[in-house]
Amino acid sequence: MKTDIEIAQEAKIKPIKEIAESVGLEEKDIYYYGPYKAKVNIDVYNRLKDKKDGKLILVTAITPTPAGEGKTTTTVGLGDALNKLGKKTMIALREPSLGPVFGIKGGAAGGGYAQVVPMEDINLHFTGDFHAIGAANNLLAAMIDNHIYQGNALKIDPRRIAWRRCVDMNDRQLRFVVDGLGGKANGVPREDGYDITVASEVMAAFCLSQNLTDLKERLSKIIIGYTYDGKPVTAGDLKTHGAMAVLLKEALNPNLVQTIEGTPAFVHGGPFANIAHGCNSLIATKTALKLSDYCVTEAGFGADLGAEKFVDIKCRQGGLKPDAAVLVASVRALKLHGGVDKRNLGEENLEALEKGMDNLQKHIENITEKFGLPLVVAVNRFPGDTEAELNMVLDVCNKAKVPVALSEVFSKGSEGGIDLAEKVVRAAEKGKNHFKFVYPLEAGIKQKIEIIAHEIYGADGADFTKEAEKEIANLETLGYKNLPICMAKTQYSLSDNPKLLGRPKDFKITVRQVKVSASAGFIVALTGEIMTLPGLPKAPAAERIDIDESGRITGLF
Amino acid sequence: MKTDIEIAQEAKIKPIKEIAESVGLEEKDIYYYGPYKAKVNIDVYNRLKDKKDGKLILVTAITPTPAGEGKTTTTVGLGDALNKLGKKTMIALREPSLGPVFGIKGGAAGGGYAQVVPMEDINLHFTGDFHAIGAANNLLAAMIDNHIYQGNALKIDPRRIAWRRCVDMNDRQLRFVVDGLGGKANGVPREDGYDITVASEVMAAFCLSQNLTDLKERLSKIIIGYTYDGKPVTAGDLKTHGAMAVLLKEALNPNLVQTIEGTPAFVHGGPFANIAHGCNSLIATKTALKLSDYCVTEAGFGADLGAEKFVDIKCRQGGLKPDAAVLVASVRALKLHGGVDKRNLGEENLEALEKGMDNLQKHIENITEKFGLPLVVAVNRFPGDTEAELNMVLDVCNKAKVPVALSEVFSKGSEGGIDLAEKVVRAAEKGKNHFKFVYPLEAGIKQKIEIIAHEIYGADGADFTKEAEKEIANLETLGYKNLPICMAKTQYSLSDNPKLLGRPKDFKITVRQVKVSASAGFIVALTGEIMTLPGLPKAPAAERIDIDESGRITGLF
Repeated sequence: MKTDIEIAQEAKIKPIKEIAESVGLEEKDIYYYGPYKAKVNIDVYNRLKDKKDGKLILVTAITPTPAGEGKTTTTVGLGDALNKLGKKTMIALREPSLGPVFGIKGGAAGGGYAQVVPMEDINLHFTGDFHAIGAANNLLAAMIDNHIYQGNALKIDPRRIAWRRCVDMNDRQLRFVVDGLGGKANGVPREDGYDITVASEVMAAFCLSQNLTDLKERLSKIIIGYTYDGKPVTAGDLKTHGAMAVLLKEALNPNLVQTIEGTPAFVHGGPFANIAHGCNSLIATKTALKLSDYCVTEAGFGADLGAEKFVDIKCRQGGLKPDAAVLVASVRALKLHGGVDKRNLGEENLEALEKGMDNLQKHIENITEKFGLPLVVAVNRFPGDTEAELNMVLDVCNKAKVPVALSEVFSKGSEGGIDLAEKVVRAAEKGKNHFKFVYPLEAGIKQKIEIIAHEIYGADGADFTKEAEKEIANLETLGYKNLPICMAKTQYSLSDNPKLLGRPKDFKITVRQVKVSASAGFIVALTGEIMTLPGLPKAPAAERIDIDESGRITGLF
Repeated sequence: MKTDIEIAQEAKIKPIKEIAESVGLEEKDIYYYGPYKAKVNIDVYNRLKDKKDGKLILVTAITPTPAGEGKTTTTVGLGDALNKLGKKTMIALREPSLGPVFGIKGGAAGGGYAQVVPMEDINLHFTGDFHAIGAANNLLAAMIDNHIYQGNALKIDPRRIAWRRCVDMNDRQLRFVVDGLGGKANGVPREDGYDITVASEVMAAFCLSQNLTDLKERLSKIIIGYTYDGKPVTAGDLKTHGAMAVLLKEALNPNLVQTIEGTPAFVHGGPFANIAHGCNSLIATKTALKLSDYCVTEAGFGADLGAEKFVDIKCRQGGLKPDAAVLVASVRALKLHGGVDKRNLGEENLEALEKGMDNLQKHIENITEKFGLPLVVAVNRFPGDTEAELNMVLDVCNKAKVPVALSEVFSKGSEGGIDLAEKVVRAAEKGKNHFKFVYPLEAGIKQKIEIIAHEIYGADGADFTKEAEKEIANLETLGYKNLPICMAKTQYSLSDNPKLLGRPKDFKITVRQVKVSASAGFIVALTGEIMTLPGLPKAPAAERIDIDESGRITGLF
């Protein structure tokens, strides 16, 4: 089979003007970035706000292998297949970060014949949103240190600055730094560090904002650190939220592109799926719901993290109600959960596969019982899967009366997703939907975390370190008790221990640290070390990425 | 008078498609960024390469005050006035950096009624070029530290890494840092530091590249540091030049905008005017020369720095030959050179003014005798200037038979530049042009520096620190002897001492440090400390910059 970039480069891509017209957008709504990308004015949502929403379909996954289960690919292929069935469908995805592009993972625009295009643009600078977010983040950082340097009227304690600088690059060297060195003219020495841009709180606030005014208000609430007296200092105190909003003005308009098959797709925003909520921008999803009969979107990581945060944070803040969920599973991942070593996932192993199904089962229960959503399981076919393996997964689901479909969109495009699309339509239009949040906002911070751990992860409860207990008390005193929780946990297990595969039992999670993302409007609960700035591997993709005289790019995948 | 942003926001701006058509560009040449900005495909130059070039007009200035003499404003107004005279004219300018926008200086898109628009876009992210350059710079940095972390096969000495990270922000806190802290998993501790993006060697190479292949080859030559054995290590050795070129692919296409009066303008690239050569991209200038009868461009700082580097670096590398130069002078600057304290520049002082004319005189000699170019002096009118003062400058020039014109483009637009434009046309079409470089490339590095110091600055010669001597010997051994010189010197004096105003005599300059920018193809000679990462002032512009519900920006100026 051809590589992703070869397929993308050979695709017959339509002018974005045609794509925009196909969903009823007018010329004045569109801001072109060349012939194949556009930003759609945020005002479109206001104009259409009384129109009935389309159906909202969430694509999520079982507990994944490090290579991922193909959520984005399934989202794209499902969207194409729904369009083929005559349902006017839009896709809403996250934007890729430059970091992984030059590292191991490569691009993040789907794969095979289920991709969004222009693939190179989307994976590189796209429309500059992440650069704008990085600039806003780093302007605030510069304003903090300048404030201290110029006399520190607010009495900010340099040992308690919570705001980190950011870079859209995998660069471990910047995780822990000391800056402000070089003597009196060059700042005030302090410990500092960088996150990758997608992990910036600005990214999370951006993705949950309803409009520019909302964004500016959120930005003003960012807690950059504390005074010597322990009082929080905000971006508003530093009078930086206006300039940050100015930097984000254009970025806030959703980006319109298309799939290889011409399905309109918003690709907009991309917050980290651990310390943030891991979904594309609220405004893109809400606009897509106005412009189409079906909007297919995805949430980062497995359903225990991604879907839970999609429901309890994004849907709650944005007033969204999903109509169905698609749970992506792969034979490979199920075998991993059944005890197969990851080096042997290419070999048929029905016994392990059956054993691994308990991971799938827990996610099914979560979606149908805890979130109350109609569900379809999508078995995403990988090249090495045998017929016997695929049939076993389908049989088990069928016997349990769980709607299930084989998805072959990677190799066949929409043709490989017709069965899935038909089942999704049935679920969304006729399935039982008693959508609900996992916890009430009014519960205490600890209680909310315990509910998630118990209900969603299947844990016996949550332990809290002393540091976490103290910060929870502090945050409740400061008035943040009623915010939703953003769990930061390994995606490789339903527990907080990446080695516990399948459906772990008799465990508790440990909350080591808690912090507020006041602008995003959630409390982050960290279980274990969460890497907020990845590093490059021994042989980075950057070494293979190249461009020829004609401008043709190679090595992106 | 209205503020710059008010004037810009009220301007009747034409669709950029019309502007492009007015210079003969075809639809396929244009890549739109919304309705008012576009990138012009770099291939346009190749298509037109056999067409005769238009006239190239360089706008430069006398030794400036800290507020600047209005080179950009004069460039814009002159372009508008030439168009009004019926000469098909394009402007070629540098892109502004975000750093000064949020610091003191504000925007850099001209001023008053001589501006390029859309002003907010140009001063903010524009088409993302600087973000792309920053990403390419920082990808190389990440690749260097990752190489060391992963085993350091090339034996790079971490104490001798010459490559710094960059940020497009005024952030003094990052000038000197220690990174790679946090233990074994988080890099290798070393001293490091940041420059502002415009000071990145990538910016300089970008601005001197003729095409994508040239750019990629240049990038491969970047010396990132030295091995423990003292051998240079390049970006090519780290196999990063291909990925860097991929990041810069779109950025390399010149950006087309317009003046308030509808004159087409390329605004593209913006290398620092001290450690780099301080002109817009070569490809923008060369393309403008193919598309118009007149191309008006500017070079950073005063003529001793900007014009000299324009001639000896940009013209030499690009095969350009200017047809005339405009030397911008202001009454305020001349009074400063005549000994008036900068707080009293608003008061009429004919005596000081006359005394200060020797600075103007030296720049006139440099342009006409050392560069051999026809010249027009443009006296840029500021609000406080008296008639008597303005007349004195005009009289002195007229008596010396130096073409001179009063420029009032700031307050009157093209109407205020007609006299200047007429004189520029006369100079370009009928003036004596015996254009020449200041030094031959074959001279030794020290000799070339001494020629510049003697001929252009009026110095008795140049002293070299031991460190500089040693590095010159090293660079000549490494094969860099025949590169042109990029002087890094204060812009506030013809000497290397910012306090020596007027036309200093009996001085020598001291070269403290020398380094090669191998990708840009020049040797940087530093006299004194050059700040490569500015800081924010006590009351940064960022505090005043804001945006309202409708998206209207205020506080940019």
